[in-house]
Amino acid sequence: MIAFEEAQEKVLNTAGSFGVVNVPLSKANGRVLAEPIFADRDFPPFDRATKDGIAFCFDLSKPHYTFEIQDVAAAGSLQLSLDDVKHCHEIMTGAIVPKGANTVVMYEDITITNGIVTVETPVTIGQNIHYQGSDEPKGNVLLNIGTVITAAEIGVLATVGKSEVLVQKNPVITLFSTGDELVTFDSIPELHQIRQSNSHAIRAALLEWGIASEIVHIKDEKEAIYNALKTALADSDIVLMSGGVSKGKFDFLPEVLEDLRVIKAFHRVAQRPGKPFWFGCHKAYKTTVFGFPGNPTSTFANFHVYFIPWLKSCWGLPIETIEAHMLDAYENTIPLTRFERAKAFIEKGQFKVKIIEGNGSGDLTSLVLANGFVQIAPKSILEANQKVVFIPTRQILK
Amino acid sequence: MIAFEEAQEKVLNTAGSFGVVNVPLSKANGRVLAEPIFADRDFPPFDRATKDGIAFCFDLSKPHYTFEIQDVAAAGSLQLSLDDVKHCHEIMTGAIVPKGANTVVMYEDITITNGIVTVETPVTIGQNIHYQGSDEPKGNVLLNIGTVITAAEIGVLATVGKSEVLVQKNPVITLFSTGDELVTFDSIPELHQIRQSNSHAIRAALLEWGIASEIVHIKDEKEAIYNALKTALADSDIVLMSGGVSKGKFDFLPEVLEDLRVIKAFHRVAQRPGKPFWFGCHKAYKTTVFGFPGNPTSTFANFHVYFIPWLKSCWGLPIETIEAHMLDAYENTIPLTRFERAKAFIEKGQFKVKIIEGNGSGDLTSLVLANGFVQIAPKSILEANQKVVFIPTRQILK
Repeated sequence: MIAFEEAQEKVLNTAGSFGVVNVPLSKANGRVLAEPIFADRDFPPFDRATKDGIAFCFDLSKPHYTFEIQDVAAAGSLQLSLDDVKHCHEIMTGAIVPKGANTVVMYEDITITNGIVTVETPVTIGQNIHYQGSDEPKGNVLLNIGTVITAAEIGVLATVGKSEVLVQKNPVITLFSTGDELVTFDSIPELHQIRQSNSHAIRAALLEWGIASEIVHIKDEKEAIYNALKTALADSDIVLMSGGVSKGKFDFLPEVLEDLRVIKAFHRVAQRPGKPFWFGCHKAYKTTVFGFPGNPTSTFANFHVYFIPWLKSCWGLPIETIEAHMLDAYENTIPLTRFERAKAFIEKGQFKVKIIEGNGSGDLTSLVLANGFVQIAPKSILEANQKVVFIPTRQILK
Repeated sequence: MIAFEEAQEKVLNTAGSFGVVNVPLSKANGRVLAEPIFADRDFPPFDRATKDGIAFCFDLSKPHYTFEIQDVAAAGSLQLSLDDVKHCHEIMTGAIVPKGANTVVMYEDITITNGIVTVETPVTIGQNIHYQGSDEPKGNVLLNIGTVITAAEIGVLATVGKSEVLVQKNPVITLFSTGDELVTFDSIPELHQIRQSNSHAIRAALLEWGIASEIVHIKDEKEAIYNALKTALADSDIVLMSGGVSKGKFDFLPEVLEDLRVIKAFHRVAQRPGKPFWFGCHKAYKTTVFGFPGNPTSTFANFHVYFIPWLKSCWGLPIETIEAHMLDAYENTIPLTRFERAKAFIEKGQFKVKIIEGNGSGDLTSLVLANGFVQIAPKSILEANQKVVFIPTRQILK
């Protein structure tokens, strides 16, 4: 049995890219950018009116405040020219400022009588003009490698004409569960049976990261497990297992994994829940195996504590430690790192967290009350208001 | 022109459900539950061993510490019986505790020699047993109406055998943009043109809420706009427009909307960006129209300030006000509510926010540096560390 910190380090040390792939813009949402994105032209590409009104040439030494309307500069039209300082063009938001004009005044600040405009407010040269290249000159990096693509980034990608975007590949994942007591979710279980839930919960958690996965469930028969696991290892970048790694008589997985030449990095970590965690890699298949214990909370905790940071690291994303203030004091009397179900919230600008009273690691229903886990060192005492590491399991804001 | 608070109230007052629909469990992720979910049996459904080891009957008045092994209770097998207090069953995690047994001791705490078990540690009656119904008795509500379904809820739904789940319907949304200067993202624009980006950004933002949408772009021609908008109104629950609502000569939308009998609730709000916001409803079609101004930041701000809270309200979700501490002081000198691009973060357990310097509402690229907007009252001063309302535009934690 190793310490949590050692286990975490061993897991993160195996992180590496799954490769990169071009996806169409419409599918790029949520992916991690694998190429820098440059401004393909100046932004804005021309001196652009930011208001509807008139454009004219203002000369501080000889200020004019009345103008004859010459033409209308519409957005999406070619650039007009102004032929006299006593003339103006009407101009629409998004239109090119006419050649010879240096100022835009909005309709709200003028009056128009018989084609003659009178400006009713003080004027500053250059007002209401968004100058060419003032946001970004051509060639500037707009988005760096490693950016998570969300709505704002999609806007930038569309603006620079990226109809295809190079992103980090998603891993191919098999969710592998064992256990004779488990029946499918659409079955009526006998008294001694329960429905499978872990694989479905983890499948949903992966979907929140944009990753599809395959569910495989095998009875506690060594040969069947061997054959199914061999296929899963060959076909997948990652095998996420729940159950079958404890000390039970039918916990065949550690043995079968060894038979299949998956190299064990460690088995069992000084933590609760999730102690029987088995972790290793298959060199030839380049498959990483996360063997989580079968209790719902154990699998769910280890998925968020180990797998998600590892996944982020594979994608080149930073792993950030989030800290929250404990609402109540807490004593961890055991020599194991604890991951307690908890609910974090922002109250008056402070990030706080309250531990959810659960009923052991078999208690699935208390997970719906939590939005994460707090991480508490072995044999330690946390005072109320003390800071603690918080590991989110769902969106907290937004 | 009305105040922001009045506009917000008028928008929220129109919120109502889009109806409910049954979806398969595999598609329920991210949806809002429209039925309560009950425990279909006790959880756990039987007295369940939580460790691999032995099960026996411990009598404090006549304590035994050695036992003869009778049989093995596997997970997923029928309940065994214990025929003698000097006997035990080996038992696996998840198995039913045998009839006559009241205690489970794990393998780590026993020695086995020639089929005789010796318990090496003190024993507490009932240890390592997860009692029937102790998490949830049959009939208890496990998930309430209005719960957002994430991974943990999927686990609960699978456990109770919900292969179909009743959820709030997604609205049918048309993203409607106008503007002669806009060309598609896969075009090479002329100098006076720019590529469409707003609709793609909003389409991506809606996808983050699990909603697909249709993009329609129409040139600044009144008849074409009329016809396309008529179809969009008839086909959609919501029309989200960007552009065409300002005071420009080619901003036909307010006029066309009136022609199409969309009833205007208001046009123009005392805010920056997003002032020309047009909002109304078509009674017969039951279509809600959000007419956002065309600048990228204006559309993006109004989408998050008005549309998302309205959507949440339609789905029966609470609208929470999030507060953060301003990193720096800020003065709003104008008589408009400001929505400044901002980056919120948690530092040492405090939720803080820093305003991002942008370059006006046409500046798309600064949106990628922000994760939300801060809302600042007209003509007001915020000191450093003062609390401010924060409106997220992307995930901040997780």
